[in-house]
Amino acid sequence: MAVNGNATQNGHHARATVLDIQQRRAEAGKLLSGITSVGDSSRFRGPQSGKPLAKSFAHYLSSETKLRKPSRLKEAGRLLKNKPDIISVAGGLPPSDNFPIENITFNFKNPNLEETNGSLSGDESHLSATLGKYDTKDGGADYDLSIALNYSQTTGGPQLTRFLTEHSELVLHPPYADWKILLTTGSTGTFETLVRAYLDKERRDSVLTEAYNYSTVLETMRPQGIKVFGVAADDDGLSPSNFDEILSSWDETARGARKPHILYIIPTGQNPTGSTQSIERRREVYAVAQKHDILIIEDDPYYFLQLGPYEKGGSVAEEPQTPEDFIASLVPSYVSIDVDGRVIRIDSASKVLAPGSRLGWVIGSEEILQNYIRVAELSNQVTNGFSQIIVWKLLETWGHEGYFKWLAKIRKDYTQRRNVLLDILDNHLPKDLVSWVPPSGGMFVWLKLDHSRHPDFPKRSLEEIELEIFEEAINQGVLFARGSWFRAEPDTPVESIFFRLSFSTATKEQLTKAVQRLSAAIHKSFGL
Amino acid sequence: MAVNGNATQNGHHARATVLDIQQRRAEAGKLLSGITSVGDSSRFRGPQSGKPLAKSFAHYLSSETKLRKPSRLKEAGRLLKNKPDIISVAGGLPPSDNFPIENITFNFKNPNLEETNGSLSGDESHLSATLGKYDTKDGGADYDLSIALNYSQTTGGPQLTRFLTEHSELVLHPPYADWKILLTTGSTGTFETLVRAYLDKERRDSVLTEAYNYSTVLETMRPQGIKVFGVAADDDGLSPSNFDEILSSWDETARGARKPHILYIIPTGQNPTGSTQSIERRREVYAVAQKHDILIIEDDPYYFLQLGPYEKGGSVAEEPQTPEDFIASLVPSYVSIDVDGRVIRIDSASKVLAPGSRLGWVIGSEEILQNYIRVAELSNQVTNGFSQIIVWKLLETWGHEGYFKWLAKIRKDYTQRRNVLLDILDNHLPKDLVSWVPPSGGMFVWLKLDHSRHPDFPKRSLEEIELEIFEEAINQGVLFARGSWFRAEPDTPVESIFFRLSFSTATKEQLTKAVQRLSAAIHKSFGL
Repeated sequence: MAVNGNATQNGHHARATVLDIQQRRAEAGKLLSGITSVGDSSRFRGPQSGKPLAKSFAHYLSSETKLRKPSRLKEAGRLLKNKPDIISVAGGLPPSDNFPIENITFNFKNPNLEETNGSLSGDESHLSATLGKYDTKDGGADYDLSIALNYSQTTGGPQLTRFLTEHSELVLHPPYADWKILLTTGSTGTFETLVRAYLDKERRDSVLTEAYNYSTVLETMRPQGIKVFGVAADDDGLSPSNFDEILSSWDETARGARKPHILYIIPTGQNPTGSTQSIERRREVYAVAQKHDILIIEDDPYYFLQLGPYEKGGSVAEEPQTPEDFIASLVPSYVSIDVDGRVIRIDSASKVLAPGSRLGWVIGSEEILQNYIRVAELSNQVTNGFSQIIVWKLLETWGHEGYFKWLAKIRKDYTQRRNVLLDILDNHLPKDLVSWVPPSGGMFVWLKLDHSRHPDFPKRSLEEIELEIFEEAINQGVLFARGSWFRAEPDTPVESIFFRLSFSTATKEQLTKAVQRLSAAIHKSFGL
Repeated sequence: MAVNGNATQNGHHARATVLDIQQRRAEAGKLLSGITSVGDSSRFRGPQSGKPLAKSFAHYLSSETKLRKPSRLKEAGRLLKNKPDIISVAGGLPPSDNFPIENITFNFKNPNLEETNGSLSGDESHLSATLGKYDTKDGGADYDLSIALNYSQTTGGPQLTRFLTEHSELVLHPPYADWKILLTTGSTGTFETLVRAYLDKERRDSVLTEAYNYSTVLETMRPQGIKVFGVAADDDGLSPSNFDEILSSWDETARGARKPHILYIIPTGQNPTGSTQSIERRREVYAVAQKHDILIIEDDPYYFLQLGPYEKGGSVAEEPQTPEDFIASLVPSYVSIDVDGRVIRIDSASKVLAPGSRLGWVIGSEEILQNYIRVAELSNQVTNGFSQIIVWKLLETWGHEGYFKWLAKIRKDYTQRRNVLLDILDNHLPKDLVSWVPPSGGMFVWLKLDHSRHPDFPKRSLEEIELEIFEEAINQGVLFARGSWFRAEPDTPVESIFFRLSFSTATKEQLTKAVQRLSAAIHKSFGL
């Protein structure tokens, strides 16, 4: 593999390695930065020669976004970039001396230490890092509190943007040239911003998604007048043939909506079903998206929680030791097969570092992300400075290799947790009434109830039976998520009863009790 | 004054004191909290007996917001509150052990130390605080990283909500009972959320504001199809008579918009004009708002930057020594005269602590804030956990009294900075061509050019002359904000040329150079 990422003999671009990144940084020298520096991700990409540029999707912009112009005050800030001697009295920026916080020291886990058991907690030695107010001035650092705690551009600062651009390049290796990333305030706001940029109620726009999907996303679209239609899914996730069929036979009048131009999917550890699409499945779905000129929003918080096969009572496999092997163990993202730049990937620190960071990033073509910024700079804006600088320092201290080790540790922990819940389900649930597929990703198990065996079926609606079991379960002392919450088309009749159980948080003892209580609620409802 | 905030003899409610707050906390005992605790501000208000409830403004909700229902997953979280023994397998929350950060220590300024000179920087001794992951379990603390770094409710956590509710009560003393606060991700997102909750393009809604106003706010409304109309202002801010006249004579057809139901104002240190409304002015404006049933959005980031009178070369007055005297030195907020609950106050930590915190709060009636949450929980959500816990620890360590001392220090610093710029303007600008009113609040001076003396007037448009001076100034090496950026009605003819200069950041030397360069640009344009 070429060290500097040049094209290989067969014309394909070699995937960058951690070594390439280190060399690239050494060549680039110190990262120039200051208050309100633009964190332009394209500065940090490796060479992209030989790759095509992304297609334009400007024809899908909402009328609202077409009316948007760059924020004047933020544009004024950009004027500073080309005039190093200029004095700005344009902005209402507080002087850094007026920030009360002088420095921050934090201790954090060291992923490079060997584990002695399956748990991440314990008495590992920790790493420590200190962030001062004027480290860029006094210590030659790339970043400090005087920058992080002031205003910043909506792109996010260059420091964390650099690390996450490099990380994305290592993992995703996009096949088009003008991809980039932007920092975000987390996936909920990112999706909402994309809805506003690319969906238009007055145009009668609609969106396709898996028939059962993350309820927050559905709740975001409906009040904005965007109709949502469900695509069938099997154990391998979204069905490409049903996806194609819906689009090919689209009847605008019958549907009461324009033919969809956006597919929203959670391809890994789907929420709520737990399914992970294979690479073959992804290629088929992508081909249908190309055929009908569809933009794909890939919401992928569980990407690194690809949990591997399950066997009852079996042990958790060892994690790969090198970044390259770890990356190779993951089903590729849609971005990795996206020759057109039609995929917008929503990434998040919530499941791999901490949800309270309100830190995420979005990956897509320069055109699409430019339109994203037009909305975001007047709404959720950007990741807060505490998260940017603390996560930056943590990741830079770990290095890319350390971060991959951390991700592998996390994955191993969730695999263990999944196995615990699956063992308990197998031991405590009535298997003639409840079935499930072991999830190969994410945080959830999706239980299907055989409602045909319920004594009240078909006298009572499935929704009533679902509610009865839900309420009885709360009565017994367990709370889970009802399948009907996740229905893409809630106005159609319920055809199956599902429950979503999370294995991410509860201990083995708690999970055992929870499943016993659920089992009791099911037995009671079935009159057993 | 009644220690516990009971009604006084004449039926009016006494304003709570810092002592009242301390007593209230002692009586309430330890703050019960956990992951995804609801930070309900109403728990932390003092007794409100004898005050009226807020009026309903549900008739102004946007159609989008009327369609919104509480987020199902967040609702599920709330079910946990009433069932302490319930086991939740509902949410995809990571276990706290999987957060890499173990503890955070930070050093910060001590506002209780005497100052030896006018500057806040220097070698003051600092305070120090440490936040551990399991402090609530191990140390009996109210808050820790295991809570702050996990998911939280859109209300914000109860810990910082408590401090800011108390602070708001001390400062604002609202005259209606059911007021509360919510944490936000900063004022830009807060305003945008309010636009979406209470303004409706299809209803042809419009908004009134000062004729010159913060450009970000104007840019937020226009692409959403909300028309903005300017109200005249004088040195005391928005004109109540013009406000009344516009509303009384509203012609929906001629205006192409429904009669406005929202007034957006920056009453203190107005951006860009620098004016601060007197209490008499506020009462007049409020009365007009009552007459026409108008909601007032009070955007007030500069509230504590009320800078006092200016005299050339004069020294900065000493700050009051007690919280009560400091509060009494401030013009009251619109919330303090809001008997109807028609004011929505947008507060921010950006100007008084740090913009990078992306931390703000919004104050209003329970009804209005409930609708705010319906939008926010699916878009910008809530203040990140790092900011919540670090700012909480900082404010709790300072205490309410210390925080008021900090605010007084900040105010003194900005007064000093304003005086420096005003002295320089007086020394270096051609006073026959440029005039200004010393701002009594905020961060900006608003310069008015006498365009009638320009040799190209009236041959060339004022916009062209403004642009010429702006570009020549950049050429000379100074960047400021153009007055035309702030026009509420940009499609009407420009009638005056203004420039906005900030005194918040630049040093005396920089300000001197900046004004000299601006002066040179003006001279060049005027052919002098």
